[in-house]
Amino acid sequence: MCRWLAYSGTPVLLDTILYKPAHSLIDQSLHARMGVETTNGDGFGIGWYTQTSGIDTPAVMRDVGPAWNNRNLREIAQHVTSPLFFAHIRASTGTAVQQTNCHPFRHGRWLWMHNGSIAGFHEMRRELCVAVEPSLFPGMEGTTDSEVMFYLALTLGLEEDPPGAVARMVGLVERTGRAHGVENPMQMTVAVTDGESLWAFRYASGGGARSLYYSTRVDSLRALHPDVSFLQELSDETRLVVSEPLGDLPGAWNEVPEHSYGVVRPGDDHLRPFVPAA
Amino acid sequence: MCRWLAYSGTPVLLDTILYKPAHSLIDQSLHARMGVETTNGDGFGIGWYTQTSGIDTPAVMRDVGPAWNNRNLREIAQHVTSPLFFAHIRASTGTAVQQTNCHPFRHGRWLWMHNGSIAGFHEMRRELCVAVEPSLFPGMEGTTDSEVMFYLALTLGLEEDPPGAVARMVGLVERTGRAHGVENPMQMTVAVTDGESLWAFRYASGGGARSLYYSTRVDSLRALHPDVSFLQELSDETRLVVSEPLGDLPGAWNEVPEHSYGVVRPGDDHLRPFVPAA
Amino acid sequence: MCRWLAYSGTPVLLDTILYKPAHSLIDQSLHARMGVETTNGDGFGIGWYTQTSGIDTPAVMRDVGPAWNNRNLREIAQHVTSPLFFAHIRASTGTAVQQTNCHPFRHGRWLWMHNGSIAGFHEMRRELCVAVEPSLFPGMEGTTDSEVMFYLALTLGLEEDPPGAVARMVGLVERTGRAHGVENPMQMTVAVTDGESLWAFRYASGGGARSLYYSTRVDSLRALHPDVSFLQELSDETRLVVSEPLGDLPGAWNEVPEHSYGVVRPGDDHLRPFVPAA
Amino acid sequence: MCRWLAYSGTPVLLDTILYKPAHSLIDQSLHARMGVETTNGDGFGIGWYTQTSGIDTPAVMRDVGPAWNNRNLREIAQHVTSPLFFAHIRASTGTAVQQTNCHPFRHGRWLWMHNGSIAGFHEMRRELCVAVEPSLFPGMEGTTDSEVMFYLALTLGLEEDPPGAVARMVGLVERTGRAHGVENPMQMTVAVTDGESLWAFRYASGGGARSLYYSTRVDSLRALHPDVSFLQELSDETRLVVSEPLGDLPGAWNEVPEHSYGVVRPGDDHLRPFVPAA
Repeated sequence: MCRWLAYSGTPVLLDTILYKPAHSLIDQSLHARMGVETTNGDGFGIGWYTQTSGIDTPAVMRDVGPAWNNRNLREIAQHVTSPLFFAHIRASTGTAVQQTNCHPFRHGRWLWMHNGSIAGFHEMRRELCVAVEPSLFPGMEGTTDSEVMFYLALTLGLEEDPPGAVARMVGLVERTGRAHGVENPMQMTVAVTDGESLWAFRYASGGGARSLYYSTRVDSLRALHPDVSFLQELSDETRLVVSEPLGDLPGAWNEVPEHSYGVVRPGDDHLRPFVPAA
Repeated sequence: MCRWLAYSGTPVLLDTILYKPAHSLIDQSLHARMGVETTNGDGFGIGWYTQTSGIDTPAVMRDVGPAWNNRNLREIAQHVTSPLFFAHIRASTGTAVQQTNCHPFRHGRWLWMHNGSIAGFHEMRRELCVAVEPSLFPGMEGTTDSEVMFYLALTLGLEEDPPGAVARMVGLVERTGRAHGVENPMQMTVAVTDGESLWAFRYASGGGARSLYYSTRVDSLRALHPDVSFLQELSDETRLVVSEPLGDLPGAWNEVPEHSYGVVRPGDDHLRPFVPAA
Repeated sequence: MCRWLAYSGTPVLLDTILYKPAHSLIDQSLHARMGVETTNGDGFGIGWYTQTSGIDTPAVMRDVGPAWNNRNLREIAQHVTSPLFFAHIRASTGTAVQQTNCHPFRHGRWLWMHNGSIAGFHEMRRELCVAVEPSLFPGMEGTTDSEVMFYLALTLGLEEDPPGAVARMVGLVERTGRAHGVENPMQMTVAVTDGESLWAFRYASGGGARSLYYSTRVDSLRALHPDVSFLQELSDETRLVVSEPLGDLPGAWNEVPEHSYGVVRPGDDHLRPFVPAA
Repeated sequence: MCRWLAYSGTPVLLDTILYKPAHSLIDQSLHARMGVETTNGDGFGIGWYTQTSGIDTPAVMRDVGPAWNNRNLREIAQHVTSPLFFAHIRASTGTAVQQTNCHPFRHGRWLWMHNGSIAGFHEMRRELCVAVEPSLFPGMEGTTDSEVMFYLALTLGLEEDPPGAVARMVGLVERTGRAHGVENPMQMTVAVTDGESLWAFRYASGGGARSLYYSTRVDSLRALHPDVSFLQELSDETRLVVSEPLGDLPGAWNEVPEHSYGVVRPGDDHLRPFVPAA
């Protein structure tokens, strides 16, 4: 299992979100509270979009040691500003600790990260890999279920219809799992973005999905906490989606209901039910 | 802070001691119970003596990631047999996560490892380094208090009189600390060996030294547990000294009293009071 | 491309073979002479068999940095003795620099290493992966052509008939390549062992296979060089197979002819033609 | 020995300078032409200043593997724009391969990098370390001569008078060397910056300093090559200082004379003689 964080809104120094808050994601790499594991020290990754117009794809930095003692991560966080970024800390459930197994995964302008697992993945891996579109297959560089889920979603139309493609991917995994005798194979919170919109999913085949929270709209928070100066600097639409809450601001966090997904984008955000495709 | 383990006795596969027991040292890298930190993921090291006559110095393998996910450590443990070895898992208190800061440290036939810290070390580092014998100075490759303690002990006669040299080293650190306004600078459990005898120290300037345990003599344990087959394979004199107990055998562990040190060697072992030299 | 070395014979300290000779394999990691690349700094690996009866599988140590500056490799080499070991230094042709892409690869008692490449592998990877026996598929952890070749050979009977299985694997790769418009896909020198016999192959689909040498029988060398004391310590049957010659002993090295393979085993060794299976 | 590059001028994507040119610095990590070593694979580092007003110190990213295969370096280079940056590739002459031995070194707003060595440094290390201002001493985290040179220069007034402080540092090293029987201890090309001006030094005690080049003023180059569009985007004052020339533009490079230093800053640059202080 893992922990992750997705930010969209007013451009901020990554440090502001990754290190500064009480119980920050970096702190969670040593001391997670809501995860299955308390330690997420098997690698990490960040992906960020720049505002410079000429650059097409997000930057991705991943490394295999723990996030909490990584000096390069701290340097990047203290010197890079971004309006949209992902961060992920990993607790391996057995697969190799290597950069290509660290999240976020990237395909063109898209980033993907995942917390959870596919029960019985070891046995299903070949079958799921074979279901990936042949032209996409060579892009898979690691051995995680998370990466295969991304490539299956790409295969099933992620770039045109993210919620539909994720629903089809989950449906495929569930059918494959059941064929292998695994009744409830999917356990996931997933974040995916094309650099403009951000989709976050919370789902588990048999219920009991991993924790997921989204932040209250900044204008509402500002009304609640008129004295918190940090909130003055953020646009109304700034939004965080996280595995577990950061900081200690009352009213700041809302649970994403199980079997639902949210869309964060310019204009109104939405929260909708998530149903795997048959 | 850190956790460590020292083994002396019947040659065993390292795996038997490092991975197999319940609450093994490798398990403690993720979930220590008695340390100040529960996670010891900032590097690790092992040092072992071979029985091949032609090799003069112990082997040392150290790496910067966590022990719990290191495949090379597991390979070595499953294929190397040794009658005397050290293992250490590190939780950095701020110094860089790099091989040269991992324990055990080696000088000729000697190995040294440490759990604890020198309060105010940052300010005292220069003064303590300068006190190291100039011909030994170039051997210091890292930036930990632990390595400086080793080189000070070598400077003060470790190779001739280990308990005396450690007492002089602690005395020097305490005097230096007090000159810098630190009343109780030393917090340590230390293991040191020349490949034949093993000395283990437990001391803190103001009391409250970190935990340290030694195993009960194997012949006594065998009498207590005649049905535990593993004990049949070990010589009477086999001994473990550990930061926190392994396994779940009743009667197996005894606390090293504060301000004392033990000697493990062929023939009778000894436990003696430890007093820093004025 | 890469460089490799396989040793079988009188148990020796790995250091004797890996570091001591002029133009040693470790030296070749910085300055290869006969390879396509002069630098082989994208990871390395060693695999060795112990003589301790209780251990079933060889040890494998692999790491991602260059061999020339790796301290753990040097420590292992200076403290481990083995009668049969493989060593490999890697120059990536694009695939990720990660432990799971380093050679040797292991399956049970078997070790495999490779120098060369499959032309057009990126396009063929999916098809070749799908040809791997489903029960073996989950064992593939990396993304190299070399590992897929090993798993195809295992699929095609490596454990029963190594030369036949390698011939079938090469035949399959050549047919697959031609279906993808690659006339001469295979370029390889391969070493494989079960811990008792050692097979070494030299082959390229269109000719021009990478360099491969085997050492002259020790009794012949001893007759040539009665004054070289090192030779006195080796059994007659001790044999090295290497990508490029080590040391500077006249008469010590013989080229493995293209399109042939050698078997090193107790009793007489053999050199035979290698023909891919139709 | 090592290779390095310093850039000052029009903000560019790091990639433009680090990867794009023929015989780029990253290419030199595998195939340097003018260095003592052709391979510089023992770590690397970059340091860059951002234009965001709120950030006081430069970012530094350093890692221990070769630059040529480092994916995070490539990501940073493709997504970070800077008006002033340093890059360094390392060939260790024996000291440990660890982040804290990688250049550039940072102190506050200052960056320092070095190619060369102090002959006899091992023996002089203690004496030179002791000469570092005690309050600066704890900042030294590695074991290279390069870092000690930086801290000696800081001790001797680098922040007020860079050329004077470097002259005093070299004078001190030469006196110390001679006291240890080393007639010509210093071999160096050094770059140092405070984020506004950039100083580059070329000096060797007995002559024969390592290669160093500076780029021709962009307005002159533009006159020579009116058709090179890249030059149109650069300010007249953009300047590169490099261990060995990049690219293949005739007239682009000028050798820094031995025993001299250059200053690159807004307004006119200068080239002046360098004489160690007595």
